[in-house]
Amino acid sequence: MRLREKMAVPHGRNFLMVPGPSHVPDRILRAMHRQSVDHRSLDFPKITHSVLKDLKEFFQTKEGTCFVFPATGTGAWESCLSNTLNQGDKIISVRMGQFSHLWIDMMHRFGLDVLELDVEWGDGLPYDQIAALLRNDTRHEIKAVAVVQNETTTGVYTNIPKVRQLLNQLNHPALLFVDGVSSIGSLEFKMDEWQVDVAVTGSQKGLSLPAGLGLVCARPKALALGMDKPKSSNLPSVFFSWKDMVDQNQLGYFPYTPSVPLLWGLREALDMFVVEEGIQNVWARHHRFAEGVRRAVAAWGLRPIANKPEEYSDTVTTVLCPEGIDAQKIVATAYQKYNLSLGGGLMKLRGRVFRIGTLGDINELIILGTLAGTEMAMRDVGMPIKLGSGVAAAAEYFQQTAIPTRGLSGTQAKI
Amino acid sequence: MRLREKMAVPHGRNFLMVPGPSHVPDRILRAMHRQSVDHRSLDFPKITHSVLKDLKEFFQTKEGTCFVFPATGTGAWESCLSNTLNQGDKIISVRMGQFSHLWIDMMHRFGLDVLELDVEWGDGLPYDQIAALLRNDTRHEIKAVAVVQNETTTGVYTNIPKVRQLLNQLNHPALLFVDGVSSIGSLEFKMDEWQVDVAVTGSQKGLSLPAGLGLVCARPKALALGMDKPKSSNLPSVFFSWKDMVDQNQLGYFPYTPSVPLLWGLREALDMFVVEEGIQNVWARHHRFAEGVRRAVAAWGLRPIANKPEEYSDTVTTVLCPEGIDAQKIVATAYQKYNLSLGGGLMKLRGRVFRIGTLGDINELIILGTLAGTEMAMRDVGMPIKLGSGVAAAAEYFQQTAIPTRGLSGTQAKI
Amino acid sequence: MRLREKMAVPHGRNFLMVPGPSHVPDRILRAMHRQSVDHRSLDFPKITHSVLKDLKEFFQTKEGTCFVFPATGTGAWESCLSNTLNQGDKIISVRMGQFSHLWIDMMHRFGLDVLELDVEWGDGLPYDQIAALLRNDTRHEIKAVAVVQNETTTGVYTNIPKVRQLLNQLNHPALLFVDGVSSIGSLEFKMDEWQVDVAVTGSQKGLSLPAGLGLVCARPKALALGMDKPKSSNLPSVFFSWKDMVDQNQLGYFPYTPSVPLLWGLREALDMFVVEEGIQNVWARHHRFAEGVRRAVAAWGLRPIANKPEEYSDTVTTVLCPEGIDAQKIVATAYQKYNLSLGGGLMKLRGRVFRIGTLGDINELIILGTLAGTEMAMRDVGMPIKLGSGVAAAAEYFQQTAIPTRGLSGTQAKI
Amino acid sequence: MRLREKMAVPHGRNFLMVPGPSHVPDRILRAMHRQSVDHRSLDFPKITHSVLKDLKEFFQTKEGTCFVFPATGTGAWESCLSNTLNQGDKIISVRMGQFSHLWIDMMHRFGLDVLELDVEWGDGLPYDQIAALLRNDTRHEIKAVAVVQNETTTGVYTNIPKVRQLLNQLNHPALLFVDGVSSIGSLEFKMDEWQVDVAVTGSQKGLSLPAGLGLVCARPKALALGMDKPKSSNLPSVFFSWKDMVDQNQLGYFPYTPSVPLLWGLREALDMFVVEEGIQNVWARHHRFAEGVRRAVAAWGLRPIANKPEEYSDTVTTVLCPEGIDAQKIVATAYQKYNLSLGGGLMKLRGRVFRIGTLGDINELIILGTLAGTEMAMRDVGMPIKLGSGVAAAAEYFQQTAIPTRGLSGTQAKI
Repeated sequence: MRLREKMAVPHGRNFLMVPGPSHVPDRILRAMHRQSVDHRSLDFPKITHSVLKDLKEFFQTKEGTCFVFPATGTGAWESCLSNTLNQGDKIISVRMGQFSHLWIDMMHRFGLDVLELDVEWGDGLPYDQIAALLRNDTRHEIKAVAVVQNETTTGVYTNIPKVRQLLNQLNHPALLFVDGVSSIGSLEFKMDEWQVDVAVTGSQKGLSLPAGLGLVCARPKALALGMDKPKSSNLPSVFFSWKDMVDQNQLGYFPYTPSVPLLWGLREALDMFVVEEGIQNVWARHHRFAEGVRRAVAAWGLRPIANKPEEYSDTVTTVLCPEGIDAQKIVATAYQKYNLSLGGGLMKLRGRVFRIGTLGDINELIILGTLAGTEMAMRDVGMPIKLGSGVAAAAEYFQQTAIPTRGLSGTQAKI
Repeated sequence: MRLREKMAVPHGRNFLMVPGPSHVPDRILRAMHRQSVDHRSLDFPKITHSVLKDLKEFFQTKEGTCFVFPATGTGAWESCLSNTLNQGDKIISVRMGQFSHLWIDMMHRFGLDVLELDVEWGDGLPYDQIAALLRNDTRHEIKAVAVVQNETTTGVYTNIPKVRQLLNQLNHPALLFVDGVSSIGSLEFKMDEWQVDVAVTGSQKGLSLPAGLGLVCARPKALALGMDKPKSSNLPSVFFSWKDMVDQNQLGYFPYTPSVPLLWGLREALDMFVVEEGIQNVWARHHRFAEGVRRAVAAWGLRPIANKPEEYSDTVTTVLCPEGIDAQKIVATAYQKYNLSLGGGLMKLRGRVFRIGTLGDINELIILGTLAGTEMAMRDVGMPIKLGSGVAAAAEYFQQTAIPTRGLSGTQAKI
Repeated sequence: MRLREKMAVPHGRNFLMVPGPSHVPDRILRAMHRQSVDHRSLDFPKITHSVLKDLKEFFQTKEGTCFVFPATGTGAWESCLSNTLNQGDKIISVRMGQFSHLWIDMMHRFGLDVLELDVEWGDGLPYDQIAALLRNDTRHEIKAVAVVQNETTTGVYTNIPKVRQLLNQLNHPALLFVDGVSSIGSLEFKMDEWQVDVAVTGSQKGLSLPAGLGLVCARPKALALGMDKPKSSNLPSVFFSWKDMVDQNQLGYFPYTPSVPLLWGLREALDMFVVEEGIQNVWARHHRFAEGVRRAVAAWGLRPIANKPEEYSDTVTTVLCPEGIDAQKIVATAYQKYNLSLGGGLMKLRGRVFRIGTLGDINELIILGTLAGTEMAMRDVGMPIKLGSGVAAAAEYFQQTAIPTRGLSGTQAKI
Repeated sequence: MRLREKMAVPHGRNFLMVPGPSHVPDRILRAMHRQSVDHRSLDFPKITHSVLKDLKEFFQTKEGTCFVFPATGTGAWESCLSNTLNQGDKIISVRMGQFSHLWIDMMHRFGLDVLELDVEWGDGLPYDQIAALLRNDTRHEIKAVAVVQNETTTGVYTNIPKVRQLLNQLNHPALLFVDGVSSIGSLEFKMDEWQVDVAVTGSQKGLSLPAGLGLVCARPKALALGMDKPKSSNLPSVFFSWKDMVDQNQLGYFPYTPSVPLLWGLREALDMFVVEEGIQNVWARHHRFAEGVRRAVAAWGLRPIANKPEEYSDTVTTVLCPEGIDAQKIVATAYQKYNLSLGGGLMKLRGRVFRIGTLGDINELIILGTLAGTEMAMRDVGMPIKLGSGVAAAAEYFQQTAIPTRGLSGTQAKI
């Protein structure tokens, strides 16, 4: 019928519930809506210095040096590797899903000698195997251990302090690299306390910015490698060079034109999450939202692919579908019929799982709407889901743990 | 505990589910973000003429003349009365809720002789009583019948064609005025077919703009009264004068500085709803969304205060609460704990009802999230609501009636 | 040639140098880009109260009550008259240009008994004639004296304290009404010190907002008339009623839906001009910019139509063209060829003058670019203007009076 | 004096007249103000394909493949080198200013064997010396010739067809790389006609976007090198890999999260400059604006540092200051006193020159205001410049060459 066809216009905001990019708060979009400025002006260092200062709190570091690259998390990975290592260097890394796989692929292409470990997708780090590799490396040829704090493919969370402990117990000098793309700014992360040597993240996850910034933090041991790297090494770094960046950042400038809108956005995000909310509250918020989703998943009779509850991610829940169900159809249906963007299964998980992200500018009702939409989409593909069942379980949890945030005399409520 | 207190920051977008102002689509906010222009320039008539042309389609009129006042619905009421009537003129009006009450109050203050009819709040127009008044008015002293198409207080919808029929059957020349503030652009409205003489609406309802425009449409008989009104009448009109407006609009200009951002916003809204979606699809969309809410209300064991199903409003559902429940507490709880804005009970309905608006830039998942939030808030104040019950009923309906709107090759999907 | 024709696209921002609407600062446009909110929420009073508080400083009043109407300056006029007067009341007013003419026209249409005075356009108030009228009015039948502080048609500035002095010397109780649409927020204005009874202005001039707000300030004597006005007077006021507004404003709300984007914009404008810059500095800034334009006009061998230097306006300079030159052609040429919007001559000055506005978000270089554009346009219509002559005179003045505003360690420079 | 100090707030828009970043048109800022989307959605390929298609017209290529990296021009350089070359490869490059210097520095750090040529800063390419190097390279060991089309330091423009001719005359197979960061999208550039093998540019110049995109175009011979590069070469490329990008772009996606706001901005910029204005008109526009500046410079008795008129750049004019004048003081004064951002002298030209950019969203009056501001700043530092002299010369030229662009019935004027 023609009328119904014409009705086929999506209304209201898309529910962007993939595990990044995440909903950008209106405040940040507004902050980014700015005319260009002269990034060589006398005033520009104010913004540079203020952003770099608050990024330290964001990474929970006093000793680290932060970098803002006009790139993405992939570029941040590249910055980590090319500033600290040379071709032929040994590095331990674990393939737990697509993102750890891609990082390992980059290591190979950079000519590193990768000691790869593979686990079932859904499992966490094989701490024992890492320990064994390190223990056997008596000549300390292994230069780095690279782990993903939160594998976005599976929603599995890594115990970074435990990795640090392995290194310390063996007095192994290998650097500890953490891919925190889908975790830092959402999940607990403590650069200094955990003695992480290099951590990387992107702007489009917990920071709630658009993609376009690759953020890196390096503690002194790693930084020194980058600062002292010979100009012509066999793994050169120019665009992602720490030395070029430090030299200019100290003066308040950048070695090339920064993406000013994203800098303004970053300034606003740091105001929101570091200055106003407090980073520990940010972590607590992400936990609460993800726990609501997990209650729903259980109520549906399903389970996360993550095998251990203590490894459940608070930014993404990867839901395992029953045999015979094509999970991609759920994702497609949710998008086409309900204006809901869920994450699909990646690589070998394609068709077997869908993913619900819980980061960015969301709240309880957005999650409950998402769960309702997921229920409809699961039913559309033939799953015997009771409508409202997951919503009820999550709502029960949200109701019990809710605290008033609006209309209070003492708060700086955003009206 | 300090941490929890600091957590008390509302996240994600407020669910603005009052019956106006409604969610403004991002497209419209973007369209309004424009530098000022010279409203006396050679180019300005293009925007004036294009907006006035498409407003005709919006009001479903060929014979009518449309006016855009930089004001609100209240101002549009004033424009309707002051251009067509004089102090002492007789007018029939019906008090069905707060908004019809306020319009009647304005009529009194304008010195009109108001033949008031009162109904139970929840009831629709007393068509028989109106007919009786008209029938008795053999000398045709009654100059106008003023009715509210959609009483936002109660969610009661008026059968405008039936009022027109009453007048026509009696050959009564009284003008028919329609307050369509919370209906036109959402609910079926046909200026010409229904022979409405003056209709008024505001920008912040179905049009999905911010408040700030009072829109008026006058058909020839009413228009002539405004155009011929002596400059000094006992009910003068200057700011809201039709004659001043027509004189300038014909040239493409306005008698005083128009609010240009709202004009751009109106242009975009007309593109979205009149040009692209089609006004009949807009009506169908509002019906479907409101029906979902009504299914939830029934599942909760509650009912709209509107007494007759054929008078249910598709823009607002006013939900009657059980004895002993203070409905205002539901509204306050929803706002403070769940970032959900519901409409409260107005005047004598305060504490007895809450209202769920279903207009503006919303979709199924926003409604389902709203229903989940309402369920939690009702439970918070002690109502024995089963979580997920209303959500499930609405989701059932939405699932059955959903049609794909995204990811389709043939559509102009907004990605 | 086809290439040149296709080149015919205007580039860069339009130089909007009409005397209002004025350039809106990016900060204000950004502040206005906000989703709608529930204007009946528990949080809303914060914005209402904060805006009304700072408006007092804006009007330089402690005793006055401020009103924000979602309308324009014309609506503000209407609010002034309808809240304080009744049909038949005597009022003195002076026709000095189009805007004072239109106000007088409104007075007639409102049934007031207008004691009109006419002056040459370019002349200021006929203080003696006003004094004479007041002196002869021994029975104090004259209820008000209404004057325009800055006639936008001619660029003539009124000495308000002098009018106050006339009234006080005669102990005449008539109210003093001031149309400050193109002056308040730009030119010196002191509500309390000058004992102005009602002042009105609009948002699109010195406040640098889009049009859409009519601002009114009433001191106690005038306010009392509005508050005590019988609901049904022969000059009724509903949309513009002070009493309705006061009743709701006290609670932090509005009697009908306010235009929230403009409220946010007003909040930002008050931050910029009242809180940060300081209103006295705002006046100084406008004087300096207008003086630059006057130096240019003199260098061109032309003169403002304002006859007395002490009556030169600092928001608009109305430039008298030589005989034989059609000033409208200058305005059209500037717009069509140089993307420059100048003000045209109004009513009987059409073709004889053009107007350069100097209010809103402008600076020295925008003015110098404007003067260069005006020089080119004057040459295009055949005036023997030496290119660069006016620019040089203005630049000379600007250079001498410039003070550094950027790149300073101690300032809150906007980078 | 306190008042004057408080006045020290910059008003109006900064005149951003550095040679990039340039003024971003309001249309583009508006287009970029968008919520994030799922870049893996079914709809996303529409935006990817549409942008890549129009970029071909932008680069004037049918055979080339375009790349959009979320990076900057520096990253685009890196992409060019790392996809086509290996460590130890010979490359010819010419140091003409800071940007060619930095590119050569990157080549060294990448382990290339750079055959460097140096010229006086202000001179163009030493075509003869390049020819000599190529002629002597009978074994075709030279893999590439890398030239800057427009050296932003000096405002010197390179004759790319002449370089192509040298290669073709010698039948030398070296690749031709062109840094078009400050030229492509502003100055004539023809990828296919000139047989450029790789061209790179950034978003913040002629395209009038913020910085944040590095754009690359590769013709088949160069592309093949990137596509066939072994995964582990001694000059690896991952973030900037063409192969990864082509593989995903063909499907409508990106190998990692793209910066969606900048993609929307790029879509709008391509609409403005490629679809609406036409790229040849863009070139003509830049020529006209720069010529106006050069007329002013001559009127001041100064000259561009570029030694040959046929090598004058149309995006930046580098003005040589007299002995004894510190050009940096002019730049600082313009910024601090007149809200004008000029480009300073770079490296060995620091203090000897200042630079006026003429790209981005500017027009005649912005340039004339800039020239007036520059005149004031030059006088402030003691140069005997006659105020208005440069303005007059430029205005004379602009007036003679102006064509109407507004208020025309046949045009799509932006009002």
